[in-house]
Amino acid sequence: MLRVRATRERKLSRGGARAVKRGSPPGHHRVPAARPRAARGGGAGLSRDPALPGSPGPAMLRLLAAGCLLPAGPASCSRAWLPRPPGPASGRGLLSRQGRAAAGSAGGGQVPALKTPKGTRDHSPVHVVLRDRLLAAVVACFKRHGAAAIDTPVLELREMLIGRYGEGAKLIYELQDQGGELLALRYDLTVPFARYLAMNKITNMKRYHVAKVYRRDNPATTRGRYREFYQCDFDIAGQFDPMIPDAECLKIVHEILSDLQLGDFLIRVNHRQILNGVFAVCGIPESKFITTCSTVDKLDKMPWEEVRSEMVGEKGLSPEAADRIGEYVQLHGGLDLIERLLQDPKLSQNKLAKEGLGDMKLLFEYLTLFGITGKVSFDLSLARGLDYYTGVIYEAVLLQQENNHVEEPVSVGSVAGGGRYDGLVGMFDPKGRKVPCVGVSIGIERIFSILEQRVEASGEKVRTTETQVLVATPHKHLIAARLKLISELWDAGIKAEMLYKKDPKLLKQLQYCEDTGIPLAAIVGEQELTDGVVKLRDVATREEVDIPREKLVDEIRRRLEP
Amino acid sequence: MLRVRATRERKLSRGGARAVKRGSPPGHHRVPAARPRAARGGGAGLSRDPALPGSPGPAMLRLLAAGCLLPAGPASCSRAWLPRPPGPASGRGLLSRQGRAAAGSAGGGQVPALKTPKGTRDHSPVHVVLRDRLLAAVVACFKRHGAAAIDTPVLELREMLIGRYGEGAKLIYELQDQGGELLALRYDLTVPFARYLAMNKITNMKRYHVAKVYRRDNPATTRGRYREFYQCDFDIAGQFDPMIPDAECLKIVHEILSDLQLGDFLIRVNHRQILNGVFAVCGIPESKFITTCSTVDKLDKMPWEEVRSEMVGEKGLSPEAADRIGEYVQLHGGLDLIERLLQDPKLSQNKLAKEGLGDMKLLFEYLTLFGITGKVSFDLSLARGLDYYTGVIYEAVLLQQENNHVEEPVSVGSVAGGGRYDGLVGMFDPKGRKVPCVGVSIGIERIFSILEQRVEASGEKVRTTETQVLVATPHKHLIAARLKLISELWDAGIKAEMLYKKDPKLLKQLQYCEDTGIPLAAIVGEQELTDGVVKLRDVATREEVDIPREKLVDEIRRRLEP
Repeated sequence: MLRVRATRERKLSRGGARAVKRGSPPGHHRVPAARPRAARGGGAGLSRDPALPGSPGPAMLRLLAAGCLLPAGPASCSRAWLPRPPGPASGRGLLSRQGRAAAGSAGGGQVPALKTPKGTRDHSPVHVVLRDRLLAAVVACFKRHGAAAIDTPVLELREMLIGRYGEGAKLIYELQDQGGELLALRYDLTVPFARYLAMNKITNMKRYHVAKVYRRDNPATTRGRYREFYQCDFDIAGQFDPMIPDAECLKIVHEILSDLQLGDFLIRVNHRQILNGVFAVCGIPESKFITTCSTVDKLDKMPWEEVRSEMVGEKGLSPEAADRIGEYVQLHGGLDLIERLLQDPKLSQNKLAKEGLGDMKLLFEYLTLFGITGKVSFDLSLARGLDYYTGVIYEAVLLQQENNHVEEPVSVGSVAGGGRYDGLVGMFDPKGRKVPCVGVSIGIERIFSILEQRVEASGEKVRTTETQVLVATPHKHLIAARLKLISELWDAGIKAEMLYKKDPKLLKQLQYCEDTGIPLAAIVGEQELTDGVVKLRDVATREEVDIPREKLVDEIRRRLEP
Repeated sequence: MLRVRATRERKLSRGGARAVKRGSPPGHHRVPAARPRAARGGGAGLSRDPALPGSPGPAMLRLLAAGCLLPAGPASCSRAWLPRPPGPASGRGLLSRQGRAAAGSAGGGQVPALKTPKGTRDHSPVHVVLRDRLLAAVVACFKRHGAAAIDTPVLELREMLIGRYGEGAKLIYELQDQGGELLALRYDLTVPFARYLAMNKITNMKRYHVAKVYRRDNPATTRGRYREFYQCDFDIAGQFDPMIPDAECLKIVHEILSDLQLGDFLIRVNHRQILNGVFAVCGIPESKFITTCSTVDKLDKMPWEEVRSEMVGEKGLSPEAADRIGEYVQLHGGLDLIERLLQDPKLSQNKLAKEGLGDMKLLFEYLTLFGITGKVSFDLSLARGLDYYTGVIYEAVLLQQENNHVEEPVSVGSVAGGGRYDGLVGMFDPKGRKVPCVGVSIGIERIFSILEQRVEASGEKVRTTETQVLVATPHKHLIAARLKLISELWDAGIKAEMLYKKDPKLLKQLQYCEDTGIPLAAIVGEQELTDGVVKLRDVATREEVDIPREKLVDEIRRRLEP
């Protein structure tokens, strides 16, 4: 779906971070890779999180933030609208300039520290263009599946968020009590959706929501995560026949990850009831299901031995119970595994497990009809951290690429996740009326950092404006002619710019076109005014043709037809 | 630019509020007018701000929030995805249901109050569709003028916002000190833009930014304003020749308000230096310029006599000085007034005033070339509240329409405003380096409420999804066939839905198409499976044709070509 040519796949470091190519000459800045390692501490968190020696990453990040990203070519960094490249200064030079600025402000007292809050960042024009492409692909998929959009406030009543996120609760941003309600910033889009359904007594709805959420995540323990970041959520609410909406959510993940050509991926699927059944048959008391679940959830980050010792140590399970759990949660497979577990003498006697396995079997039948079982794995180690899941749960991970451009070992985190939460809406309803829900959230930030590297590798020039024509004059005293002509073009819907100088040199005007990728220049001088024409110049070929003024708009449209 | 047919202009009440048509039968909900009066207190602020007796407004607002807005026609309120209309319950019935829900939750203690924070609201699917249309028109204009987009965090360091907003400072939302930086929610998009420029050492840039801003506005003193609301900003930063960027900002306001067909409007223009010159020649000490300015700013809301008494009473000006100011600030006109003031024996001697009037004269020359002076008025009473303006300032207001559908007296507030702020970036730069800026902010919320009324009046059916085909089956045991077919359609990029029932009745499936505006149904039964065809039904005409399965995608595309 994205018009991005992927020239090659590249391996990613753990946090999706990659160093950009070193030693590029000044003025040849390509789209740099995002380096969440440095960015974790926020836009100006450089002092907290010093750059690796010799790594131009943070400085490139700075340039990215500065919008200085029309890449490649001797005149790539626009001179008029974008900042000049830092000349002979290296990345580190720029970095230390930033450092001085911050230091200066700290000393001055008057000027505030020039930074965005920790864990947040500005999006430069190039950033926004790439982000919008990505979001457009995701939204196109949501619309293809018939979802309507809603939007909810960034602020929620604090009590609305309390007790929904397990250990995540401590990461909620709370607002000062300035007299009035106690407020917090939304932590995800799921709880606001459940609140919206309950508040409006909606019993069925298929909606998507693309918006920023806020988490005071500890930069030391999380990787490549921002404190303000986008979530792209698709959810189906309503009482329906089993597994049909659940299967569609997985189909959506499959479509999006395929469309974006992010390389190979795997969707891991499990079911909370199966997990609970496993815990039950292993002799865990029901009161410890949730806490055991959150320990199992760590299996993707630590080996079984460590998880086992947390179960026995911190969570107080018996070694035997932990071992029995270990036999189950290390299993993964497809329909065959489901069938095997349905025959399991202990599990098949447990009501929860049996129901869950029945769901899972039906789900895999539907996924087979969708033709996507090849990328789906029933994985009993998947638990997911959030309290509100009640049924099927899933998570998509990008897989390591085997290729010859490997520089670092790779582990790419989850890029999508979700599940069924049948109880959440009922928690908000005064009468406890339940609305079953299932949904998925696409983790756009990680995908975005991959997309950035893709664009960098392809050498694609990212235009940050859509201007079609520069209105130019070849000599002095023609500001009136320029203003009149550009006004005509704007009124006709043509995207046009002019330099904000009274008497700019023609060369500067043409240079501006080349710098910013404007394909046409409409030049009007005394002679053209007398003749009632405009000289239309093709910036790439330098070819110039006189066009009668009244035909100019049509000619521009004709030239720029796709 | 908007594809909205305006059937008639309607008068607006002071806050842009209007009662919707009364007595519509249940099930015939049209897009209701926004009623900021009721909405001011937030989504559930009904108890604070009781509805007028008999007015269905707030209840309609509730329906709007619920997404129950496929208007008109006997089956307009979608049965499958949208909540059922409240049956025989009137708007007030629904309202009291809401009230009960809130009361129940307050009593229960467990269930949080079902509301959004005061002064905020959810956007239902219809809301989002209309809002996106509006934003698309505004952004199209910004792009037509060659602007690039940026995005900045919703959170800023608190110190970044302090001292930028005059009396607005007390309206800033501050976050709790949870350990770490002291943060606040952004109050506008201008200060973050200036911070972005200074932080990245950008000396010229033309950018737009469409995003939400936050103000703890007092619902008792402001009208039709939300605490979370969109701003659409366009700004030009850089050292350029005088008045060229300033004139473009006014051209943009003119284009947007014309494109949106909001009726007649007026752009009031003034200049901070002219105001300061007036104050100087009237004998006001420079230390009182800003405070006098904020009193003058009230002239659009109160008569001169009251403004004068505030000047003399609260601000301590002499009655003579106030009277001298009064002679100037009640003037408005065009180039003629500028010429007259340039001849004014006192003003022409004042350096500030002379420079300001020189700017204004040049500005009007450029506006004449743009052909927009007919809607621009040089108005010495315009002052604008924000501290950071240094030059040209402007504000656009919609004018009262003369028509026969008047029910209430009308006063429509400002829908756009802006000006030149040459000092703001320098305040953030450690070395105080200035970057001159001029910009404009489009007040989307007021325009949106007008647009809503427009759509309501036109009876336009607002589709909230874009689904092209419903995949349906005529009898039982065909879930597999449906899943297989819909999967093929999705993979071909067709927007398709199916009901999430194993064996839905055909009538229900076709009804769903009519309810939600899906134009085509692709029906596959045993016979079609055997014949290798799909029955394609035109929902409007009920015409059905068998299409060979392999030609289905092409046929759907052909049918739905614009």
